[in-house]
Amino acid sequence: MIEKIINYRRDFHKFPESGWTEFRTTAIVAGFLMDWHYTVLLGKDAVDTSFVMGRPSDAEIQKNIQRAINQGADETILEKMAGYTGVVAIMDTGKPGPTTAFRFDIDANEVDESTSDTHRPTYEGFRSLNPDVMHACGHDGHTAIGLGTAEFISKNKDQLIGKIILIFQPAEEGVRGARAIAEKGHLNHVDYFVAGHLGFHLESGYFSPKASGFLATTKLDVTYTGTSAHAGAQPEAGKNALLAAATAAINLHAISPNSQGSTRLNVGQLVAGTGRNVIPEFAVLKLETRGASTDLNEYMLDKTYKILNGAAVMYDVEMEIKKVGEAGTVECDAELVSIVADVARGISDFDNIVEDHILGGSEDASVLMAKVQEHGGKATYVFLGSKIAAGHHNSKFDFDEKVLERGYKFFTHTVKKLNGV
Amino acid sequence: MIEKIINYRRDFHKFPESGWTEFRTTAIVAGFLMDWHYTVLLGKDAVDTSFVMGRPSDAEIQKNIQRAINQGADETILEKMAGYTGVVAIMDTGKPGPTTAFRFDIDANEVDESTSDTHRPTYEGFRSLNPDVMHACGHDGHTAIGLGTAEFISKNKDQLIGKIILIFQPAEEGVRGARAIAEKGHLNHVDYFVAGHLGFHLESGYFSPKASGFLATTKLDVTYTGTSAHAGAQPEAGKNALLAAATAAINLHAISPNSQGSTRLNVGQLVAGTGRNVIPEFAVLKLETRGASTDLNEYMLDKTYKILNGAAVMYDVEMEIKKVGEAGTVECDAELVSIVADVARGISDFDNIVEDHILGGSEDASVLMAKVQEHGGKATYVFLGSKIAAGHHNSKFDFDEKVLERGYKFFTHTVKKLNGV
Amino acid sequence: MIEKIINYRRDFHKFPESGWTEFRTTAIVAGFLMDWHYTVLLGKDAVDTSFVMGRPSDAEIQKNIQRAINQGADETILEKMAGYTGVVAIMDTGKPGPTTAFRFDIDANEVDESTSDTHRPTYEGFRSLNPDVMHACGHDGHTAIGLGTAEFISKNKDQLIGKIILIFQPAEEGVRGARAIAEKGHLNHVDYFVAGHLGFHLESGYFSPKASGFLATTKLDVTYTGTSAHAGAQPEAGKNALLAAATAAINLHAISPNSQGSTRLNVGQLVAGTGRNVIPEFAVLKLETRGASTDLNEYMLDKTYKILNGAAVMYDVEMEIKKVGEAGTVECDAELVSIVADVARGISDFDNIVEDHILGGSEDASVLMAKVQEHGGKATYVFLGSKIAAGHHNSKFDFDEKVLERGYKFFTHTVKKLNGV
Amino acid sequence: MIEKIINYRRDFHKFPESGWTEFRTTAIVAGFLMDWHYTVLLGKDAVDTSFVMGRPSDAEIQKNIQRAINQGADETILEKMAGYTGVVAIMDTGKPGPTTAFRFDIDANEVDESTSDTHRPTYEGFRSLNPDVMHACGHDGHTAIGLGTAEFISKNKDQLIGKIILIFQPAEEGVRGARAIAEKGHLNHVDYFVAGHLGFHLESGYFSPKASGFLATTKLDVTYTGTSAHAGAQPEAGKNALLAAATAAINLHAISPNSQGSTRLNVGQLVAGTGRNVIPEFAVLKLETRGASTDLNEYMLDKTYKILNGAAVMYDVEMEIKKVGEAGTVECDAELVSIVADVARGISDFDNIVEDHILGGSEDASVLMAKVQEHGGKATYVFLGSKIAAGHHNSKFDFDEKVLERGYKFFTHTVKKLNGV
Repeated sequence: MIEKIINYRRDFHKFPESGWTEFRTTAIVAGFLMDWHYTVLLGKDAVDTSFVMGRPSDAEIQKNIQRAINQGADETILEKMAGYTGVVAIMDTGKPGPTTAFRFDIDANEVDESTSDTHRPTYEGFRSLNPDVMHACGHDGHTAIGLGTAEFISKNKDQLIGKIILIFQPAEEGVRGARAIAEKGHLNHVDYFVAGHLGFHLESGYFSPKASGFLATTKLDVTYTGTSAHAGAQPEAGKNALLAAATAAINLHAISPNSQGSTRLNVGQLVAGTGRNVIPEFAVLKLETRGASTDLNEYMLDKTYKILNGAAVMYDVEMEIKKVGEAGTVECDAELVSIVADVARGISDFDNIVEDHILGGSEDASVLMAKVQEHGGKATYVFLGSKIAAGHHNSKFDFDEKVLERGYKFFTHTVKKLNGV
Repeated sequence: MIEKIINYRRDFHKFPESGWTEFRTTAIVAGFLMDWHYTVLLGKDAVDTSFVMGRPSDAEIQKNIQRAINQGADETILEKMAGYTGVVAIMDTGKPGPTTAFRFDIDANEVDESTSDTHRPTYEGFRSLNPDVMHACGHDGHTAIGLGTAEFISKNKDQLIGKIILIFQPAEEGVRGARAIAEKGHLNHVDYFVAGHLGFHLESGYFSPKASGFLATTKLDVTYTGTSAHAGAQPEAGKNALLAAATAAINLHAISPNSQGSTRLNVGQLVAGTGRNVIPEFAVLKLETRGASTDLNEYMLDKTYKILNGAAVMYDVEMEIKKVGEAGTVECDAELVSIVADVARGISDFDNIVEDHILGGSEDASVLMAKVQEHGGKATYVFLGSKIAAGHHNSKFDFDEKVLERGYKFFTHTVKKLNGV
Repeated sequence: MIEKIINYRRDFHKFPESGWTEFRTTAIVAGFLMDWHYTVLLGKDAVDTSFVMGRPSDAEIQKNIQRAINQGADETILEKMAGYTGVVAIMDTGKPGPTTAFRFDIDANEVDESTSDTHRPTYEGFRSLNPDVMHACGHDGHTAIGLGTAEFISKNKDQLIGKIILIFQPAEEGVRGARAIAEKGHLNHVDYFVAGHLGFHLESGYFSPKASGFLATTKLDVTYTGTSAHAGAQPEAGKNALLAAATAAINLHAISPNSQGSTRLNVGQLVAGTGRNVIPEFAVLKLETRGASTDLNEYMLDKTYKILNGAAVMYDVEMEIKKVGEAGTVECDAELVSIVADVARGISDFDNIVEDHILGGSEDASVLMAKVQEHGGKATYVFLGSKIAAGHHNSKFDFDEKVLERGYKFFTHTVKKLNGV
Repeated sequence: MIEKIINYRRDFHKFPESGWTEFRTTAIVAGFLMDWHYTVLLGKDAVDTSFVMGRPSDAEIQKNIQRAINQGADETILEKMAGYTGVVAIMDTGKPGPTTAFRFDIDANEVDESTSDTHRPTYEGFRSLNPDVMHACGHDGHTAIGLGTAEFISKNKDQLIGKIILIFQPAEEGVRGARAIAEKGHLNHVDYFVAGHLGFHLESGYFSPKASGFLATTKLDVTYTGTSAHAGAQPEAGKNALLAAATAAINLHAISPNSQGSTRLNVGQLVAGTGRNVIPEFAVLKLETRGASTDLNEYMLDKTYKILNGAAVMYDVEMEIKKVGEAGTVECDAELVSIVADVARGISDFDNIVEDHILGGSEDASVLMAKVQEHGGKATYVFLGSKIAAGHHNSKFDFDEKVLERGYKFFTHTVKKLNGV
């Protein structure tokens, strides 16, 4: 089995796909799951499209579907996806018992993979074939572990009770994908939910049953639309979107700190204007807020909307704000933390079970976890230690593939623990 | 007569009073006009108080009434004024004929008069006794000419027909006073209206029957009110009025120029905040817009309101905007220009009658003129040349008093021309 | 001859080339001029490369050379150009006499030509073949007239005295090309200089021997370079180029107007930042200043440099300012105005000789004219009236081709007048 | 003794004096200390005037000296002070032994004391007689304890060894006074240093031998000086100090947060401009930076200077920055903490000795402590619990006077412990 999982991983690594364009990945995963007799939900059955955030333009989507076809994606499955990636698969044992859900994220990063001779994917021949896209965060490993786990469940269905739901989530990068899955209702009757991540500065052989330090975050794309005019001949006829955006940017960065905890705001991009002698008609800001708690992020967001709006009023320009990503803070449930810690202790491959590991960033698994908890279920987020060749999102990222076996063991043992007869 | 007029002027010069505090001046003027049998309107009969702009605080008004009493103002007259300065006086001959109105402005400047030995008011003993107030624009002369003219009209009533209205207007500086008089309706049935100014870089002996180049202007006082908070302990609780005002100030200055003509904006004052460690709760901006036409000034005002409002939205602060002054652009009527030019040509004291003279600034006589024209009357604005010792509003300003006699002759001859039997 | 000129024009129209990429146009013009026995200067003999402004990147240049080859440009001539476009051609009669120079500009606009059925270049088959580039200002006509004139001079050399210099100038759009030619010294010994433009809202058949209302202008590209950092994890390590640029933009627009005449500033483009969660390392501003006089433009530039520099100091970022275009104000010489007016009066095709026509924009012919005048020569700028189908720079621009014959006649008659035996 | 101390306290409370104007307080303290045979240093012997920060104008100083005389200050002593407040008093026992220094701060707040009937200083008749000045922080108590301690030391000199230095420090509010004393060298040979505060949300009867959570801070007054000009007639001649200050203010608030710990910046005041129609020549900003460590405050300061400077460059205005206050972070020495905790445990009046108490603000005792530590001495900062009637700096502030006796006991027992024979 472990060789299969390594092969899955290397195949996904070779054909990485960024958020909402994981057409080949989705098709492959769905194909296997169908073979293994899961109820497979795709496209609008998997995601609530009104909550899809940060999806590329239709043109971009079409281009990627074509690319996926060229790279071997099954066209029948693609058709069912109707342009939306991600898989929700259900294995109902037919026997009474708990409902357990696992989440594996499947998207890659917009990073151009290293061509260095010392980079293993290069010298072992599974370097990305898709320019400027790379699995630089380990989601290829997550997906592979998910497939291994799925096969195990299918093969051992007789030994299991209750229901198991496998979520192969698109667009985790930019915290864009979870909301659309959460809102579709898949998690409303889940008793146990486990998500996790490999690497993350935890040594090979280490395991943490609990994550803390989730940062709440919101990602916004803001467009100001004014009126162009010849800057020399009739400047008074213009409504200057560039100045609206510039004023917004400065004042956003001047939002007051908060005594309740740390907050952040970044305007990461500002693109405005057309010709040098034309009053700029358009301006786009790409920004994010963060907070050590959901409340602190809300504080930042509230001020952000006021400032964005004020700048529009100042320059009499139209404003459109798109939320293109969001994640909250969340607490892992002690009961489930304890269960999965026990599971890990029972697996000899793990050398060391730590109590807690800090995420210190944003993860939209938090959105799924919160939804489970809202309905009375228990959720946790685990870390599977693995030496990494370079930091996450770095063009030389790679991980110690032994984590794939450990991950497979962890999830399958958890299934046996929670849904064993 | 001319000695009387010089004495009037020097008395007013010694007791200058700034806009809306001309209590002594008003009382003296009203006293004479009553003696000369005019119908004298004061206080709320003279001005429509709902259009009074830029009047000082009540405390300031009370202090000045007391000062005026100390400086000899008649208390009975003061009582009639009910706190509002300015006089509108009507001489009705009882005979059919045109209605003619003249306007003389009576207020002084907030300038500390020079103590130099070479400054004539100093060495001839009529320097201002009121600290930081000075007749530095010549309105003392205007008021004196107005009194001379008033006495002439009264003495020569038998030789006159129609009605003559004399307006002794408060608060011309800052273009604050005219609107309240115009809105009271005094000018709704006026056939001829003449206002004017001495000096203004026109040589002694020169006369211009027509002014052009009026700049439209609006003066605004803006207050932002936010919420204070301890800047170290709880900065998130504050709403920062200082930053709202600062952002407004910069963006106001960035209002686009206009291809239709020249415009100006100045934030002349910004005062914000209390303690160093307190999020500023208050901010005040004093600003003005100008335009070469009323439309251009409106363009500036429109943008100004948007920016002021946008800054309030940005920082979630309350905003109060007070209009504290305004003047428009206006065209002198050719017919009346021609009449007064003829009058001046008939006075041997004038060496030179120029066709036109540029004002190049703002004058709220424009508001009165526009009101006359709106009702079908004719209006003009004249210049009475006079060498001046230093520029208008300078602490060494003084003028060649020969202009007083020339002004007296001009207005009395105009009366004879327009309202002679 | 007139058919030839029309053919030239339509050929250039079909293969338009934007500033500094006029490789095909230059090669064709140079080829003819060589055939006609001119001394032909190309590349670094034509332009002083240290004064070349606003030239595209080397990659862009190479791409355009290749395109020109594909579109028939002579490779031998291209080699002589060494990557720089434009032709300076000298016809020396060998006989004593005045030196006369004419300037024809050869570049096209970055406009996507209309595909409308009512657009003549479309339905007569000479629409642009180069996407997003179009002769939308009439320089195709100028170049064609220049070639016609060149052939005439060559054919009639015996009837001429002195020297004639023909300047086929690149990159007039954006006022980028003239300086590099002026600084090469070609104009240091010129007695008479004539440039001109067709169209410009002057009716067909009209001619103006004199332009006024040149606006001085400077075009700047500004790059701020800071330091990127993760906006959540280590924001203090960043140096924010986006905020530097935003602050600069707002304050640039707040430069005070000038009582001496009208001024303009426009930040037409601001592009800053990379990822949403990265402190922006780069920012680029594209801006222009203008003034009704060279002094007024200098006033704007002086303030502009201060503000740009101040923003760099504020955010501790590196700044690079590239001047990518400039033009001044200039006065046409009365003597030469009178000569060319006489020439035009002698040509029956012109219905109407107006005294003066307002340019009301910027033209870098002003740079050449100023250089001629600096050395004691006389210069003028003429307008050749022509009905136009849509405004200059519009995607439906086209002109009445009768102007080509009138232009040919004007320039050849001027040659005869100034350099006839 | 305790009655004496209460009387001292109430006398100081009645005649409160704000920072650098503590002329009466200084004169009274110095008078006692002279009577008790201390070597008393005053004026330039007590403070290094080149490090005096935030001292009022000379006019203000003179006014306060006169007030102090009217309120009974000894003129001979005032003369020695030469305009500078504060006392450094040394008791040298002549016997070998450690040098111990205590610091008592003597200044009051700019607060108008409550006139409420429920406010004890009002109903017991020791309410402030100085308008807008009030001992609202408890420094009256500190000074009184200091005097009690001083008398004890003098009376028990025979039982003591080494040297004892008493510092009655001016201008602790605004953290202005300590630096000038530290730089004078009084602390360069001190072995033990103790400062402290009463109240501070620690209950009556509680004692803390150690403070933590000092915030480093710097207070700056910034003046921009530009050039005034008539905003309508010649705006180009102005250099706008208001816009420089406004731009600085916004960008200062946009300084990036720091991942190493919390930081603050506040522009608490901005005052700019003169007349509405005058380009503002002057602008003043009053601001403060803070950091959870001295390094973090330095980070803020470094950015602050860059932004202030950049705004000056932008608007071509002169800038003057005055540091008017500063305090650092400091660690109490464990050895001395342990000693004073033991002392307190030995005093039955203290019910409860806590380990540590958070200051959570800024105190310039930190400057003195750092100086002691720099030279190898030990320093600590203690809290003397006391119920307070309202928060520190509130107009109804008052404290449980029992703390005076406890404070007296603490300091005298500490003397005995450290300098007993």
